Amino acid sequence: MNNSNSIKIIKGNIIFTSVPEGFNITEQGFLVMRDGKVEGVYESLPDIYSGIEITDYGDKLIIPGMNDLHCHAPQFRNLGMAMDRELLPWLENYTFPEESRFKDKEYARSVYSAFIREIWKQGTTRIAVYSTVHKSAALQLMELFEKSGLGAYVGKVNMDRNCPDSIRESAEGSLADTRELLEASAGKDSLVRPIITPRFVPSCSARLLEGLGELAVEYFAPVQSHLSENKGEIEWVKELHPDSSCYGDVYDKYKLFGQTPTLMAHCVYSDEQERELMRSRGVIAVHCPTSNMNVGSGMMPVRTFLDEGIRVALGSDISGGHTCSIFKTMVYAIQISKLLWAESGKQISFLSNSETFYMATKGGGSFFGNVGSFEKGYDFDALVIDDSELSTLGYTIEQRLERFIYVGDDRHILHRYVQGKLIEEPEL
Amino acid sequence: MNNSNSIKIIKGNIIFTSVPEGFNITEQGFLVMRDGKVEGVYESLPDIYSGIEITDYGDKLIIPGMNDLHCHAPQFRNLGMAMDRELLPWLENYTFPEESRFKDKEYARSVYSAFIREIWKQGTTRIAVYSTVHKSAALQLMELFEKSGLGAYVGKVNMDRNCPDSIRESAEGSLADTRELLEASAGKDSLVRPIITPRFVPSCSARLLEGLGELAVEYFAPVQSHLSENKGEIEWVKELHPDSSCYGDVYDKYKLFGQTPTLMAHCVYSDEQERELMRSRGVIAVHCPTSNMNVGSGMMPVRTFLDEGIRVALGSDISGGHTCSIFKTMVYAIQISKLLWAESGKQISFLSNSETFYMATKGGGSFFGNVGSFEKGYDFDALVIDDSELSTLGYTIEQRLERFIYVGDDRHILHRYVQGKLIEEPEL
Repeated sequence: MNNSNSIKIIKGNIIFTSVPEGFNITEQGFLVMRDGKVEGVYESLPDIYSGIEITDYGDKLIIPGMNDLHCHAPQFRNLGMAMDRELLPWLENYTFPEESRFKDKEYARSVYSAFIREIWKQGTTRIAVYSTVHKSAALQLMELFEKSGLGAYVGKVNMDRNCPDSIRESAEGSLADTRELLEASAGKDSLVRPIITPRFVPSCSARLLEGLGELAVEYFAPVQSHLSENKGEIEWVKELHPDSSCYGDVYDKYKLFGQTPTLMAHCVYSDEQERELMRSRGVIAVHCPTSNMNVGSGMMPVRTFLDEGIRVALGSDISGGHTCSIFKTMVYAIQISKLLWAESGKQISFLSNSETFYMATKGGGSFFGNVGSFEKGYDFDALVIDDSELSTLGYTIEQRLERFIYVGDDRHILHRYVQGKLIEEPEL
Repeated sequence: MNNSNSIKIIKGNIIFTSVPEGFNITEQGFLVMRDGKVEGVYESLPDIYSGIEITDYGDKLIIPGMNDLHCHAPQFRNLGMAMDRELLPWLENYTFPEESRFKDKEYARSVYSAFIREIWKQGTTRIAVYSTVHKSAALQLMELFEKSGLGAYVGKVNMDRNCPDSIRESAEGSLADTRELLEASAGKDSLVRPIITPRFVPSCSARLLEGLGELAVEYFAPVQSHLSENKGEIEWVKELHPDSSCYGDVYDKYKLFGQTPTLMAHCVYSDEQERELMRSRGVIAVHCPTSNMNVGSGMMPVRTFLDEGIRVALGSDISGGHTCSIFKTMVYAIQISKLLWAESGKQISFLSNSETFYMATKGGGSFFGNVGSFEKGYDFDALVIDDSELSTLGYTIEQRLERFIYVGDDRHILHRYVQGKLIEEPEL
């Protein structure tokens, strides 16, 4: 048959979630891909594919790659550190001084290389990530991602007030640098692209927000930022923007809230009005349960967002979060939902395994295109899981997946694929 | 000098907590032990020890071993599984059927062997553990622990009502079996000993509780059970024992609440009266944060217990908990305390690293004797941590410890010691 060179077939226990309500499981199934996209998943291989070589993964699990929709790459050195501090001293003493070091391109290279190796290790295949205010560091991070083969939206952070001098920009300088990054990527076909990244409302002047919104629309560039993470922050935004009806409304006024594809991280305390704005604008809420615990922000009521039809994805949010693993982030998402379930007197149902898996795969993946599922036409972003060490006592396929998520780790991830291409450990 | 053969010296970065308020850190220090007990920790080696061979661990961290004070060994197969179920269906469909399989000694051996290897791997050096109702399985677990070199209190579970027939005992049968286990261990000098283990109030008749209390006093045997884990359970206990002033009071009436050393797991909803009874009786509250989240029990207000002078230790509580790692249990303990801190409007302080480390080491260790510290006279139970892979970006000793706890895993535990003896991976 034609084009057989561009067709690949792999065999194994194939698991994904086309909908949040349950897993699609094909034991010892065949996954056919063409040009890196899924053509179909079959219990037995259709005749038209006979004669094509099959990569047989035996009894292993084949699942979509993990999508991390909120993460601060320059905080990688601080991972799992200074967790004893409250938010403000933590920002002042650890986060901001560390970010200021990224004006040094060599330092940026060393940390970003280690960071990318870590997310590769943990099975993340696509990521939306913050760099620092430095254009050179953002470019470096994009180049390193390009080399790695992983997919990434990389954001040069914009910040022209309420931050230390060492990392404060001018509004016009910030906009010019951002435009340069957008321009450099325009028209390029790449898995690595820029994303507009106002750090959060309090660190951006009206002029900066306005200019960023204009850039977003001009380049149809996606946007990421923080939203309603803690109560003090919400009060602060209210003081800074007394005319806005809610925190999200500030972004919205400046065309940074769904006018182009938009990620808003945390949303722990988004009220009904803000949630309705998110829903109507198609803004994705990024749930960062580890960070929300470590920094003491609180518990995002994910069930309410889902019930209201708001899209929800997962984020590691290092180094507020202490793990790059989206699998462990899933565990925390379920656990937090169980605390809310208990507090509600069991009125609010907790998150099921498949719902949470959906967030980490097809839910978050939707930000990158047809990503995160094995339905026809989806990019073949996948992990091959060798859980033999964990499954000696006898389990079903679904139990094996659950056990890998809860008790497994990177040792059990045998291979990573992005768009059908096997991604080896990045040598950066 | 005399007895130099019984003296061992090790060198490295020595960390422990003699009090909860902070870490004792000796960089490149010397730890001298005699007959498995710590003689001292020194910045430079006193002359009297010159000429004795030194085991030099270079830049590695040397910390006390982990103490797990609440754990169900027969649930090991279910670790990280069926987390999608509520408590009752989980017990009925997973926990109880699994426990009934332990009447088969061969099955018990296979699961218990894997379990002990896992806790060894995770750095647990002492444990208080539940077996099942089966005497033979409890004996097997004790024998396997004996072979492993780890320290353990092993409890044959007592249960004569409100459970499936397959694992229900008669009160007299349960008492006879328990006496037999106590008798077999009486007078023996061993790190592995029996502990009296009524499963929880609702599963024990008055006659059984009474008999167990008598055995505890007769043999001065320690006791472990569950207390105030969730609201439904507390209501149930109230119905079963309308004359008791609180859940803990039922145990107390039957001499199972501090008359001998006692562990009570969970205590999520212990009220002021119950906490006062715990304090006055010296009962140790075992905090099981992972289980309390996974099963949706709620958040134990640990700070209140500490403020009131109640001793608190940590428990993995597998398979309600999803990890045997007491390091990861520490992380969850801190995180839960931060949620309570946030909910209280920052009125209740969250747990510091050293407080939580103390619970996992000297706090929990106190149940086993002089265990969990490197003060003079303490058993040398220790872990040697090789975190070189985690520390390439430059950190202080205390930051390295914190990072190992948050982002490290068993790969970074190079050696385990119990009473000065190097414990190799158990071949069981």
